[in-house]
Amino acid sequence: MPGSFPSEHENRELELTAEEFRALVEKALEKIEPFLRGLPDMPTHGTEGIDSITASLKEPTPSSGTSFDILLATLFEQVFQIGFNTASPGYLGYIPGGGVLHSALADLIAGVVNRYTTVYAAGPGLAQIEATVIGWFAEWVGYPDSARGFLTTGGSLANFSAIVTARCDKLPEQFLDGTIYVSEQVHHSIVKSARLAGFPLRNIRSVPTDARFRIRLDLLEESIAADRARGARPFLVVGSAGTTNTGAIDDLEALADISGREDLWLHVDAAYGGFFVLTSRGRGRLRGLDRADSITLDPHKALFLPYGTGSLLVRNGMALRRAHSASADYLPPMQVDDARVDLCEISPELSRGFRGLRVWLPLKLHGIEPFRDNLDEKLDLTAWITERIRELPGIEIVAEPQLSVVAFRHRPEGMPDGKDLDAHNATVLERVNAGGRVFLTGTRLSGGFVIRFCVLSFRTHRDRMEEAVSALREATTKSG
Amino acid sequence: MPGSFPSEHENRELELTAEEFRALVEKALEKIEPFLRGLPDMPTHGTEGIDSITASLKEPTPSSGTSFDILLATLFEQVFQIGFNTASPGYLGYIPGGGVLHSALADLIAGVVNRYTTVYAAGPGLAQIEATVIGWFAEWVGYPDSARGFLTTGGSLANFSAIVTARCDKLPEQFLDGTIYVSEQVHHSIVKSARLAGFPLRNIRSVPTDARFRIRLDLLEESIAADRARGARPFLVVGSAGTTNTGAIDDLEALADISGREDLWLHVDAAYGGFFVLTSRGRGRLRGLDRADSITLDPHKALFLPYGTGSLLVRNGMALRRAHSASADYLPPMQVDDARVDLCEISPELSRGFRGLRVWLPLKLHGIEPFRDNLDEKLDLTAWITERIRELPGIEIVAEPQLSVVAFRHRPEGMPDGKDLDAHNATVLERVNAGGRVFLTGTRLSGGFVIRFCVLSFRTHRDRMEEAVSALREATTKSG
Repeated sequence: MPGSFPSEHENRELELTAEEFRALVEKALEKIEPFLRGLPDMPTHGTEGIDSITASLKEPTPSSGTSFDILLATLFEQVFQIGFNTASPGYLGYIPGGGVLHSALADLIAGVVNRYTTVYAAGPGLAQIEATVIGWFAEWVGYPDSARGFLTTGGSLANFSAIVTARCDKLPEQFLDGTIYVSEQVHHSIVKSARLAGFPLRNIRSVPTDARFRIRLDLLEESIAADRARGARPFLVVGSAGTTNTGAIDDLEALADISGREDLWLHVDAAYGGFFVLTSRGRGRLRGLDRADSITLDPHKALFLPYGTGSLLVRNGMALRRAHSASADYLPPMQVDDARVDLCEISPELSRGFRGLRVWLPLKLHGIEPFRDNLDEKLDLTAWITERIRELPGIEIVAEPQLSVVAFRHRPEGMPDGKDLDAHNATVLERVNAGGRVFLTGTRLSGGFVIRFCVLSFRTHRDRMEEAVSALREATTKSG
Repeated sequence: MPGSFPSEHENRELELTAEEFRALVEKALEKIEPFLRGLPDMPTHGTEGIDSITASLKEPTPSSGTSFDILLATLFEQVFQIGFNTASPGYLGYIPGGGVLHSALADLIAGVVNRYTTVYAAGPGLAQIEATVIGWFAEWVGYPDSARGFLTTGGSLANFSAIVTARCDKLPEQFLDGTIYVSEQVHHSIVKSARLAGFPLRNIRSVPTDARFRIRLDLLEESIAADRARGARPFLVVGSAGTTNTGAIDDLEALADISGREDLWLHVDAAYGGFFVLTSRGRGRLRGLDRADSITLDPHKALFLPYGTGSLLVRNGMALRRAHSASADYLPPMQVDDARVDLCEISPELSRGFRGLRVWLPLKLHGIEPFRDNLDEKLDLTAWITERIRELPGIEIVAEPQLSVVAFRHRPEGMPDGKDLDAHNATVLERVNAGGRVFLTGTRLSGGFVIRFCVLSFRTHRDRMEEAVSALREATTKSG
């Protein structure tokens, strides 16, 4: 009965006391500690019991509670035992990062205090922490003070916001004849994001790459000219700074020159490769990155954070604001001081989590040096393993490393390119992964199946790379 | 020198041992425990030292590390002391939720294991946990088995994906003449999302509301007819199930009828109000919700989670897939079994965090009943406080509660509508908030400034509501 207030309606069950919360955290630590100790020996890929485990997780809404002990056992003994062990030092598939534990700790704290961060007035300290972190990224890539940016959940949404910002800046009204230029090796989130932003697939030009999988500049210019000739409106070039397939870095200086001449927005997807600017070798290879109009950088890749943190930087912060500013009667007044950033004014979200802390905490605890050193180590390891596997009989390096990815195939004597060779390499990959000490992934390059390493976890060191070479030697010998 | 491997390049500093990690967690708990114990007495809004605290957080990249003790002190003694104390039981501003601690614990675990969830093969158990949670939501709103959905970071991105899905479904090609219908009270993220999705502002019809702040159905139909007459293409109606200003619920049955007749996509923004279907009163008021084509629901509102979790449900899961499916050579094969969901195939993200656990854990630990009871309690509290403040001299209820929001103003005797009355109510609001025991916010309704309560935290009970009445009585008497 509305207006009445029966006392049994005071429900305090969800309110944990400090002691109850500590007890739960302690229980979790009792599972986390053996998990961490066992991580190096845990298989890199769990396949047993997938169907029964997932079946047991399918259930209607629970009408009553289950003890934390049982839930922890379900998670650590079942759920975390299957699938790809992305935290393992042997995980060399896709783009690893490992997941520094400091960020898990930051998320614990962020969840407890549950503060609001996208309106400056609501959480000035937290908003500043995110702005500070973005400022560090801007400093690393060489952006001016006018740059602004924000943390996303990953590269996909950063790329999406970059495309929207470019669209608003270059084609503020009708944009359906706007054309976008990417290389054949561009990350698929660019194409997907362009579709989400309203561009038909036919407006996206997939430009062939050179022998090093970098966008062909001559063909890019031809494509732009052809589009202009037929009345389309070129407005955006997306460069890659570290492709997923091979870690290829487009010629960013040349892309900046072309974009400048043609009045195009230059976005660089540096989700994987961008943070290598922290190293001297990376800085050399990423020359021109600072000339991009916008840059995607994924801290959950080359800053080693757990999944869930990407970022977008935009050189001219005002463009970001023009694309995202909105107002509502129920919101507090936004800041007029340009140094105080209301994140909701420059990004697509309003309520969302406090992502700044999971970046800030590890960098503040350790300073930048171990991050730089780790990246240098990964460059060394990749160069080292490339030479080691090159010496193996029948191995062909298909993509020499430009950062920390190397792609190769194994060719049994006399076997030509084609389906048999592809199938053979898929088998080699399966054999390597079946050992459970390393996990590699495959892709297709120049029409053929290749195997690739991506060396990027802070937990991956020389010892595991030696195991990778041995596993590969064994897998290719067996089949030789 | 590439290829060489100096031993000093093995950097293990970021690798915490199990013992080191436990020690950091223990240190954090030493701050978290007094924070939780002090929460009821902590001011609901911290204003002191904002400038000096934010200034101290502005700094270049740290070249060396800082001790965790110092960082914890910065966070708990400075950063978390300023801004809105959204975790407080007295926080009744905007849309609170409080933030159950179980989710912070879930984030700790998720960060440690750092698994990949948007490709089923990569993390089958984790993907299933998210699918299970989405299944619960679908069950609650009465959606069929064909429904699919995903967890977002909040309502804004859920609303964005709904608009993109509607656009792809109804206007798969040229869409710039597509028109969208919303009420004047719709959340601003709808308008913002429509712009991000490529619609010019002029395509969005803001339909006036009735005396209860619900969309005027007659004017909606007129607007659709007028657009059709001029050759525009109506394709989307957005209903609100619990507006931010007043908690108003549009007539969802009528909107479903109109959408059906006119072949429009019906999206319901139920970010705040949707989970009230768990209560019998809510279910009655939300009649018709199951007829929507898509629904936004924010677990960080009426499921009491910390900020960072929204969701989108789409009745016909295939529409979600058509709008989001993409492929790439480097990705593992997607599932062909429709029961196994590759989240990246039905949502905009690829790498991102494991959001499922922070919803699953509290619901599994407690079952659904305390969530339902809490929502019932909040309905009771809102009805109760509405009657109490109605009795206060000069208080006019501007929006009677439809869920757990009530909006009102104080009118000193004889003061007409206008700037003076607005300024007076802004002063009343400031006085109430200055006490630090409750935090209310204001908005504008029918041209005038009003004060509003939103009662939604699991920590808010009768005792704090009584303090709110006292604070309001005092603030209005002082000025009377």
